[in-house]
Amino acid sequence: MTMYEIIKKKRDGHELTKEEIEFFVEGYTNGTIPDYQASALLMAIYFNKMNKRETADLTTAMVNSGEIIDLSAIEGIKVDKHSTGGVGDTTTLILGPIVAAAGVPVAKMSGRGLGHTGGTIDKLESFKGFSVDMSIEDFIKNVSERKIAIGGQTADLAPADKKLYALRDVTATVDNISLIAGSIMSKKIASGADAIVLDVKTGSGAFMKTEDDAFELAKEMVDIGTHVGRNTIGVITDMDQPLGFAVGNILEVKEAIDTLRGEGPEDLTELCLTLGSHMLVLGKKAENVEEARKILEDIIKTGKGLEKLKELVIAQGGDASCIDNPELFETPAIIEPVLSEAEGYVEGIEAESIGRAALLLGAGRETKESKIDLSVGVVLHKKIGDFVKKGEAIATIYANNPDKQKQAEEVILKAYTFKAEKVEKRKLIKGIVTKDGITKF
Amino acid sequence: MTMYEIIKKKRDGHELTKEEIEFFVEGYTNGTIPDYQASALLMAIYFNKMNKRETADLTTAMVNSGEIIDLSAIEGIKVDKHSTGGVGDTTTLILGPIVAAAGVPVAKMSGRGLGHTGGTIDKLESFKGFSVDMSIEDFIKNVSERKIAIGGQTADLAPADKKLYALRDVTATVDNISLIAGSIMSKKIASGADAIVLDVKTGSGAFMKTEDDAFELAKEMVDIGTHVGRNTIGVITDMDQPLGFAVGNILEVKEAIDTLRGEGPEDLTELCLTLGSHMLVLGKKAENVEEARKILEDIIKTGKGLEKLKELVIAQGGDASCIDNPELFETPAIIEPVLSEAEGYVEGIEAESIGRAALLLGAGRETKESKIDLSVGVVLHKKIGDFVKKGEAIATIYANNPDKQKQAEEVILKAYTFKAEKVEKRKLIKGIVTKDGITKF
Repeated sequence: MTMYEIIKKKRDGHELTKEEIEFFVEGYTNGTIPDYQASALLMAIYFNKMNKRETADLTTAMVNSGEIIDLSAIEGIKVDKHSTGGVGDTTTLILGPIVAAAGVPVAKMSGRGLGHTGGTIDKLESFKGFSVDMSIEDFIKNVSERKIAIGGQTADLAPADKKLYALRDVTATVDNISLIAGSIMSKKIASGADAIVLDVKTGSGAFMKTEDDAFELAKEMVDIGTHVGRNTIGVITDMDQPLGFAVGNILEVKEAIDTLRGEGPEDLTELCLTLGSHMLVLGKKAENVEEARKILEDIIKTGKGLEKLKELVIAQGGDASCIDNPELFETPAIIEPVLSEAEGYVEGIEAESIGRAALLLGAGRETKESKIDLSVGVVLHKKIGDFVKKGEAIATIYANNPDKQKQAEEVILKAYTFKAEKVEKRKLIKGIVTKDGITKF
Repeated sequence: MTMYEIIKKKRDGHELTKEEIEFFVEGYTNGTIPDYQASALLMAIYFNKMNKRETADLTTAMVNSGEIIDLSAIEGIKVDKHSTGGVGDTTTLILGPIVAAAGVPVAKMSGRGLGHTGGTIDKLESFKGFSVDMSIEDFIKNVSERKIAIGGQTADLAPADKKLYALRDVTATVDNISLIAGSIMSKKIASGADAIVLDVKTGSGAFMKTEDDAFELAKEMVDIGTHVGRNTIGVITDMDQPLGFAVGNILEVKEAIDTLRGEGPEDLTELCLTLGSHMLVLGKKAENVEEARKILEDIIKTGKGLEKLKELVIAQGGDASCIDNPELFETPAIIEPVLSEAEGYVEGIEAESIGRAALLLGAGRETKESKIDLSVGVVLHKKIGDFVKKGEAIATIYANNPDKQKQAEEVILKAYTFKAEKVEKRKLIKGIVTKDGITKF
């Protein structure tokens, strides 16, 4: 078997065997197969696609290229959640506590990463003293004791995926459904999840711009999960405008606390209840999503979710006092409204632009070395369908630099579009994908 | 402009601009564009093709990546010939002298290369003392004085092509008509030819297995030539069996001498007259191919071609005495016939296998370091359509090693297939491609 033959086979439209895919992934990871052969194969895959079996074999080979976290010591079905990413997505800080409060073990390995705002770990560091530094044994003990722990991603999970993704990124071979699905699923599977709920975003602020693409990606990932024995469900959700109101680290944490109090934005609450319900069903804590939803609504109503967040923060060394007193959170020097220059119903909010405004203010990382300012960001006051008068505040900017504030203001003003006629609110949940098929709402 | 954008553009089926192609070729040659991006683009080109303009621009960019030989000091239209390669192809040693004798300047840069037998230079070294070591000034002086010189390819011609070809070779991106045509034409154009006659082989022993592919390649190369102002003609010729009888270095030189005497194999003679006629017409030494053919036939008949070969050999320091006394050529220790085990009409002779037998005997190079044995090789006695009795010699092996002789014998026996019924002789010249179109015979 040679890499040349494998490239030629895929180039000529044939199906690769499990052995050929393993040969490629192993060889590429250990460096015996050079980048230039890998990129030729990736481009051939771009054109000739991979079928379900090839995609599952690729995913498994990438999982096997590194460490696989063994969570078997934790009792119960470990259900993980993954979001394909968007703007203002604070779900983990809400979902984790409510699902854990319902008895589903949440063993979350999180990263920092690049983006408009920090990752889950950065956000949790809004609680002074919070730390993810712990051994894998302590991590497992924490999850066993209180059903939730957030660990730093120290293990070398799916290194083949990391190396391949970097190559795809510079060779225009990212946009292939099998490669995208395999990349996401390899990391989830290596993280030790028994079951997976996928939040696949669609819209202008998402990686998948069209609904069809989002459904296709969800189906591909659900099929991989099924193929490797991980119960997987995909929820297709709107990302044509930012989720919730807050985009920024402390701002999102505050919004999460509000949501756990039952006072969060409608869309964010709805998304957490939907994703959480599926997690409870997969985790066998409810018979169906209706029953699960009632359990979760009750957890919010009774404050058990907020209690679970406090428990988590304290267990990992954080100062939880600001959960009850949010005014204790750090605030930036400048807090200024963005006043609308137009009047009408909000027709659209370019999610990417709002994210860019937050990044500009210092809420996220442009490079691995960037330092995050946890206090800055944007809070929207108007979403699609809302009526705005001229001079009314559509958003508030939280900044530490007046130049950046001005720049962000301009970006936000441009992100909004208005219409004289009434605009329908957007539907948040667009459909569900399970191994049995696709349901569109 | 970035390489990423160029890859994506071609991946998405768009036409690349001249500037984009130049950016790629320059960047790849000087190393600022890495192999892995180049191979991704090559695979995208494999799938989405290049049009005529892109192909011509690629060729020109590859020409401009290195030295371009200036032959303008030589009077007359410099007509070069290129063969896509086959088994037993001795044409240069015959064509060069007869065309030069007709007044067309032959300024040939040749290589050694890998293959079943050596290159033109290796074959010419069968004449003791023959050397291609000369300055470019002496080379041009030689061509001006006696219309012919054979130089070693010392200049760095089309280095982009060399680097790209090496990459294509290991990434399954050789088989694209634009890339193949551009590769061949870039070297010819950089060699300084004003006009080019292409001998495009087709059949089991050729790179282009089917006639359709050969015609397509010829058309592509003629179009490139036309696009860059080089009068180009393609002749499609059969390579389903070896050309002539001899495969080996000295053996082919002897066959060339025979042919220059008018006593050569029918197919080899016919090919040289056909290619030579087109060279004379392109070189404006004849009005049409009929007139040109008569001139060349006369040159052979009067011995002027053989005289020109002698003149060339002597001018470049070689011992020409064996031209009149071929028994002076070195002979190997073993000269043994291959006796047919079957009876019937020869239906096919796997050209590749005969080439492999010659290589096995030591006539060619497997790696750049291999040393060639000029004396060894194979002389066929039977070609397609000939009748063979059981026990009759179908070939003679010239060897210096009895084990290799046995191995070659087996290969040759397997290369022949027989049929009880009469088999038609193969047509040698299958068609002509000019800028005005394709004529199939």
